[in-house]
Amino acid sequence: MSEAIRCIALSGGIGGAKLALGLSLEMDPAGLMVVANTGDDFEHLGLSISPDVDTLTYTLGGVANTETGWGRADETWSFMGALAEVGGETWFNLGDKDLALHVERSRRLAAGETLSAITADVADRFGIAANIVPMSNEKVRTVVAARNGERLDFQDYFVHRQAAPEIAGLTFAGAADARPNGEFLAALSALSLKTVVICPSNPLISIDPILVLPGVRNALAACPAPVIAVSPIVGGRALKGPTGKMMQELGMTCSAKGVAGHYGGLLDGYIIDEADGDLAAAIDCPVRVAATVMTDLDDRRALARTVLEFAAELAAGPSGSQVSAR
Amino acid sequence: MSEAIRCIALSGGIGGAKLALGLSLEMDPAGLMVVANTGDDFEHLGLSISPDVDTLTYTLGGVANTETGWGRADETWSFMGALAEVGGETWFNLGDKDLALHVERSRRLAAGETLSAITADVADRFGIAANIVPMSNEKVRTVVAARNGERLDFQDYFVHRQAAPEIAGLTFAGAADARPNGEFLAALSALSLKTVVICPSNPLISIDPILVLPGVRNALAACPAPVIAVSPIVGGRALKGPTGKMMQELGMTCSAKGVAGHYGGLLDGYIIDEADGDLAAAIDCPVRVAATVMTDLDDRRALARTVLEFAAELAAGPSGSQVSAR
Repeated sequence: MSEAIRCIALSGGIGGAKLALGLSLEMDPAGLMVVANTGDDFEHLGLSISPDVDTLTYTLGGVANTETGWGRADETWSFMGALAEVGGETWFNLGDKDLALHVERSRRLAAGETLSAITADVADRFGIAANIVPMSNEKVRTVVAARNGERLDFQDYFVHRQAAPEIAGLTFAGAADARPNGEFLAALSALSLKTVVICPSNPLISIDPILVLPGVRNALAACPAPVIAVSPIVGGRALKGPTGKMMQELGMTCSAKGVAGHYGGLLDGYIIDEADGDLAAAIDCPVRVAATVMTDLDDRRALARTVLEFAAELAAGPSGSQVSAR
Repeated sequence: MSEAIRCIALSGGIGGAKLALGLSLEMDPAGLMVVANTGDDFEHLGLSISPDVDTLTYTLGGVANTETGWGRADETWSFMGALAEVGGETWFNLGDKDLALHVERSRRLAAGETLSAITADVADRFGIAANIVPMSNEKVRTVVAARNGERLDFQDYFVHRQAAPEIAGLTFAGAADARPNGEFLAALSALSLKTVVICPSNPLISIDPILVLPGVRNALAACPAPVIAVSPIVGGRALKGPTGKMMQELGMTCSAKGVAGHYGGLLDGYIIDEADGDLAAAIDCPVRVAATVMTDLDDRRALARTVLEFAAELAAGPSGSQVSAR
């Protein structure tokens, strides 16, 4: 990492990648570190697949499929059709272009390279100036304990079973022994750091795997820069995916307040949607109300500006009010 | 193998597959065993690739690219383009559909299945009634000794270097310890067997790897059915690929007679092209002169009929003439 990091974004896939793209356009991207969840990673068809790292790479590289939020634009699907013909498993969709990254990464991992080195090299090839950093080079795997007693690998639950099984708990296999990425820890304690933003990703499956890594919570608490989360819940509903369903099944309230409660004392600031303005007073840290639904690139950039400005205000000292208008 | 095998074809890729297709249409295909060279197999991009097995599978399955002779029809190439983007090696062309077979086979091999079991299952899925049998389930790898002292893996020599280096010799690493496929050996000694045909494949790199497997030469010599080769050399030139160049570099004469000399006492009959009719008298076994250039499906079927009829004549006893007209 040649540049001093000024902003760290903790991110899952789609929603996080949208904000990361906005941030990369609203600041010097070389000063942005996007720490990617790897709890969703899995081995499939003999390949090592890192969905959140890839969504970030494709989004920041300008080749993402903006309709789906995952995978590549102008994709073809010949491989999947032929895989069905030869009897392979087809429940996880892999486009022909997307596949190239999985094949090449699997080859390089097998040759002994680290996920972070491969990720940085691929980002460089896509012309990405921001730093995409897998949360750890060691294997962490989210495991779903279903209410019926089944234990499901994450992608089996999430994609194959379409998040239908009711969940009783989540565990992160390997997390207790996994070292967080060294560049991530170094950036957290660097004087250059101005902001840590927890992206509007699923807190349970995209952010928690990062937070449970040894030392990360302490480093975030000790970090001089403000830690700000953006709520992934708008008007009591998740914008995408089963976040709400999962929160409810685990006994949490599916609301912006519920997410803030989940992050607890970690937050120095919290950004909630205009639809949730009435919740601001009930949240235990400074709140900024903003338009958080990112439909187009302007939305992504506007939310990124809100994050950076809010962080600057929080760093400058208490404003005298928990709620500041835009 | 539920049916008794009546014809065994020893085959490499393109030329062999053409004749194998003809045979499968001119006889009960369940009685046809095509023994595929696996000396060309290699590990590339972390995948296990079996070019000759695949060419046979695609050809007999009716999905081959008839323009190139290898790969699949109606193929797309998104993977290769994206592989170049992420810095992968692109000297070996892998179509998006073709890739599915490599990925699925690699997964199944890693899970402990044999190449022959996977090949049979895939053939079944493509509706192939003939039996495609890899020559061995153990690893045999053709290695090229170049005249300049380099040792080159076969595909590195053949595809990456486009067969340009002058060769001093060929070795088949692993062959001395590799067991020939058990079904192949069993079929060779079965009473049902009527013909063994050595397809018009490159004798040095497609047929020799089969012949050098322990026990194969003896089993062919002991086999009661006639062993017939079809010359891959027509009018002193190979129809495809560097067969002629390789023969000359190894001190052989590039002619139908040169190939017969290479197979030596193994042959009970030899089929040469009409262009080479003048060589018939100089060949040390019964010769059939025929049109061996297979341009369309009719050519493939006609040559297959010639093989089967010639075998029947040879089995019936000496004809009194080395050369019999069609």
